[in-house]
Amino acid sequence: MRSEFEFIRNIKDKYGLRHVGDDCAVLPKDSKTDCVVTADMLVEDIDFRIEWTTPQLLGVKALAVSLSDIAAMGATPKWAMLTIGVPERIWNTDFLDKFYEGWTTLAKHHDVPLIGGDVSRTPDKIVIDSIVAGEVPKGKAILRSGAKPGDSIFVTGSLGGAAGGLILLESGFRYSKVGKRRKALIARQLRPTARVEAGKHLMSRSLATAMIDISDGLRADLYHLCDASAVGARLESTVIPYDENLSALMPASEWAGLGGEDFELLFTSPRKKISSAKLPLITRIGEITTNVGVVEVVAENLRRAPRTGYRHF
Amino acid sequence: MRSEFEFIRNIKDKYGLRHVGDDCAVLPKDSKTDCVVTADMLVEDIDFRIEWTTPQLLGVKALAVSLSDIAAMGATPKWAMLTIGVPERIWNTDFLDKFYEGWTTLAKHHDVPLIGGDVSRTPDKIVIDSIVAGEVPKGKAILRSGAKPGDSIFVTGSLGGAAGGLILLESGFRYSKVGKRRKALIARQLRPTARVEAGKHLMSRSLATAMIDISDGLRADLYHLCDASAVGARLESTVIPYDENLSALMPASEWAGLGGEDFELLFTSPRKKISSAKLPLITRIGEITTNVGVVEVVAENLRRAPRTGYRHF
Repeated sequence: MRSEFEFIRNIKDKYGLRHVGDDCAVLPKDSKTDCVVTADMLVEDIDFRIEWTTPQLLGVKALAVSLSDIAAMGATPKWAMLTIGVPERIWNTDFLDKFYEGWTTLAKHHDVPLIGGDVSRTPDKIVIDSIVAGEVPKGKAILRSGAKPGDSIFVTGSLGGAAGGLILLESGFRYSKVGKRRKALIARQLRPTARVEAGKHLMSRSLATAMIDISDGLRADLYHLCDASAVGARLESTVIPYDENLSALMPASEWAGLGGEDFELLFTSPRKKISSAKLPLITRIGEITTNVGVVEVVAENLRRAPRTGYRHF
Repeated sequence: MRSEFEFIRNIKDKYGLRHVGDDCAVLPKDSKTDCVVTADMLVEDIDFRIEWTTPQLLGVKALAVSLSDIAAMGATPKWAMLTIGVPERIWNTDFLDKFYEGWTTLAKHHDVPLIGGDVSRTPDKIVIDSIVAGEVPKGKAILRSGAKPGDSIFVTGSLGGAAGGLILLESGFRYSKVGKRRKALIARQLRPTARVEAGKHLMSRSLATAMIDISDGLRADLYHLCDASAVGARLESTVIPYDENLSALMPASEWAGLGGEDFELLFTSPRKKISSAKLPLITRIGEITTNVGVVEVVAENLRRAPRTGYRHF
């Protein structure tokens, strides 16, 4: 069965969609500014479960996943639209009010007005489409396609926490009824943080040659970046910054490559640029190679990373 | 139970959403141009039935409903995004390819590139979010709020056909198996036309004081326009341009006020401006009054139009 990535590539090739393929589409706005825009669909029982979260947290996450796409371009978010379809059982509760409450809290933090969208009925499940647009100085949007052999690979924050949180939720643990470490992991899954400030910082100082947010998982997103840049990568598995709370669950090394939804930024840059920039919470995890389309993982022994990560299909 | 319109008004008031409430949001683009943007959700078994249509026609309709919102602002469509969630039974067919094929045919006609969106899995039903942005000279977007007492009310094309087509589909008639008149009605439901050229024409000659597209039904959309403009309206029911094919079903007067999805343009203008502009396919159907929030229907006897039209809730 074809994956959603193959489908998108197929559609892109067939219809000559030159704009499709980065975290956001990039469009000219005026003589000094480009506009970037993204849409992310969240579907009940596929992307979230209503019994795992709260309406407020779902509102936060719906916006955060799109803000993360904006961050991955190095752009500043400017406005948002929200399309939401809900079944009748939800319409007759305060779910939507609380959802907008959560959404608005994060939107205010980033000064992003809600300018429109749609509200509809669905037969059974909640469906959300989160649309966010941002702005970036002309030609400065950080694409996936700019990585060069020899560039170092960096990641913000820590990885694997959201996947750990997901496993906990699937195992029956709930945010309100667990200890500190498990709570922290579940929070990474339910209330992700978009690295908007880090993305802007990297853009404004021209520090990144390519960037993507980690939504599908480190390996999968590194493959996306390598494909777009026509390069390969060597990951140093021993230095990957696993979420410190993962050790409560199992060896952390099991997590970071596979789990998605950390919404950290994965970017490439000549090594010297970053070391002199003294960025906080940035870890060098590997290097771009000429081995096109291949991601190697280096630790005790050299092996090839399986091409996995979260796929809807 | 509150309606979706009440909900949107409530959200708008609560969060001070000044941009929400027209067919499109209006945003500054550059010194000479405003950007307008709209999103429309289409949900399987709520907004369409897969056994009534074809994937290609559904692709056409998904784009047309949003183009109609752009038309209602008098704007020129510039780009689109498409978010689509499909269940596994659909993913494993050629549905999406044929859907994009239909979508692309209409998009090419209007020179609208697909710049992005999302593809996701759903548990059970197809869900589409159609996002289109357009451009209009600065300050020239035609809002719902500009109608003045004494303005005439006009409508493009004919009304009620899409509602008639819906009734036929609900009664078991299918496009490929009916005669000419029924086929024409079903086509109005399945393959609506967005009045993009008419909208642009009205904008470029400053002919309309207020405009909305007829998606919820003539009465409902006239109420939206009157609410936004803080005026009332008098409809002359005997001159409403019913779809000529409706007579095959029942007295046409039963249809036009209630049925939605005609995607014709409803606009207001000083009467003289329009008569001298010699627009084709435009009918004067009434007049704006000072009777705030009240739509009267005038025929043999004066009566008030019930405040109906399509609501999701």
